[in-house]
Amino acid sequence: GMRPYERDPKAIYAQSFKTVRAEARLDRFPRGLDQVAVRLIHACGMVDVADRLAFSDGAFEAGRAALEAGAPVLCDCEMVGAGIIRRYLPAGNEVIVTLNRAEVPARAQAIGNTRSAAAVELWEPLLGGAVVAIGNAPTALFHLLELIDAGAPKPALILGFPVGFVGAAESKAELAANPRGCDFVALRGRRGGSAMASAAVNALAAGLPEVET
Amino acid sequence: GMRPYERDPKAIYAQSFKTVRAEARLDRFPRGLDQVAVRLIHACGMVDVADRLAFSDGAFEAGRAALEAGAPVLCDCEMVGAGIIRRYLPAGNEVIVTLNRAEVPARAQAIGNTRSAAAVELWEPLLGGAVVAIGNAPTALFHLLELIDAGAPKPALILGFPVGFVGAAESKAELAANPRGCDFVALRGRRGGSAMASAAVNALAAGLPEVET
Repeated sequence: GMRPYERDPKAIYAQSFKTVRAEARLDRFPRGLDQVAVRLIHACGMVDVADRLAFSDGAFEAGRAALEAGAPVLCDCEMVGAGIIRRYLPAGNEVIVTLNRAEVPARAQAIGNTRSAAAVELWEPLLGGAVVAIGNAPTALFHLLELIDAGAPKPALILGFPVGFVGAAESKAELAANPRGCDFVALRGRRGGSAMASAAVNALAAGLPEVET
Repeated sequence: GMRPYERDPKAIYAQSFKTVRAEARLDRFPRGLDQVAVRLIHACGMVDVADRLAFSDGAFEAGRAALEAGAPVLCDCEMVGAGIIRRYLPAGNEVIVTLNRAEVPARAQAIGNTRSAAAVELWEPLLGGAVVAIGNAPTALFHLLELIDAGAPKPALILGFPVGFVGAAESKAELAANPRGCDFVALRGRRGGSAMASAAVNALAAGLPEVET
């Protein structure tokens, strides 16, 4: 038969975060961002993502303050939205995904870009002071940065976790170079994904389960 | 200003899948499972996951036939469900997530296991011939295997992608040892996640974007 396994959720969390803290290099993170790093690692099962995280110094405080002030969370795809634990959000913050709105395909055609990029244009009325979580499309991140360069309001924080082989590393490098002076957290390279983008939001919202449960 | 970036979705997909095929070792996969491997890599940005995939020989055909016959897709969390592209599903298949049903917390208490494991018990009337996609909780996979050992109907295919530091590797090793004779695909080790579980379903349902668009 099967060997026994851990069934107690509190023990699972405790053992899991203990392993992450034992294996990951977390010393370089300012307070708050270490919690973001731990949750990111927990979401992907890879401790070395800590070594590839880029961030602005005030990223945690900026994101936390925005959430406390009721800022919306703007996500590039449904999976990111689905991974955000609503009860953690400190002000009943709205979680908004515009990707599947009816006007997106025509707008994508009109601007000669992807649907993910077109969907970002629909964020514009909400962008100032928002928390942006990008977990899928490099073009969403690229286009967001273009819009800011063209004068769109700055979000409070950009969580940059697009994934893949075309544009993911490049879009995150552009975010991390940060000529715009935006607060950000990003995972350099090809890795990323919606689970990491959601985990970053959850860490901003709630810190770590070991603290709060 | 920013450097130019690829904005054409077809070019992005083509370039992306070309990179995956150039870098990943795909020779060992039977027809169909190579497409699953490519989509999994695409979802996580890591070509070496191909080397850690375990599978039964008939996994692709079993999953494909089940979807064509209208089998439901049973998911362990909302994110997996959110990542399944509904228009790809060949028979309007239902995508079912029981994790947040009202009776789950009490059942978890009663069985002394996690909510994720308790939610799996609610699959039982639908389990025979279903496609199961686990992208989060090791305890969901462990408990599914326990239920099958206790006589529950066998799914057509188990997609095993729980992630993390406690039980993920162990639950997938138990799946891959396969004393039950279930068709399966699993990523060995700590890595996994909802995006991979969804990607596996999408590959079964639709093959690759380069083929179908």
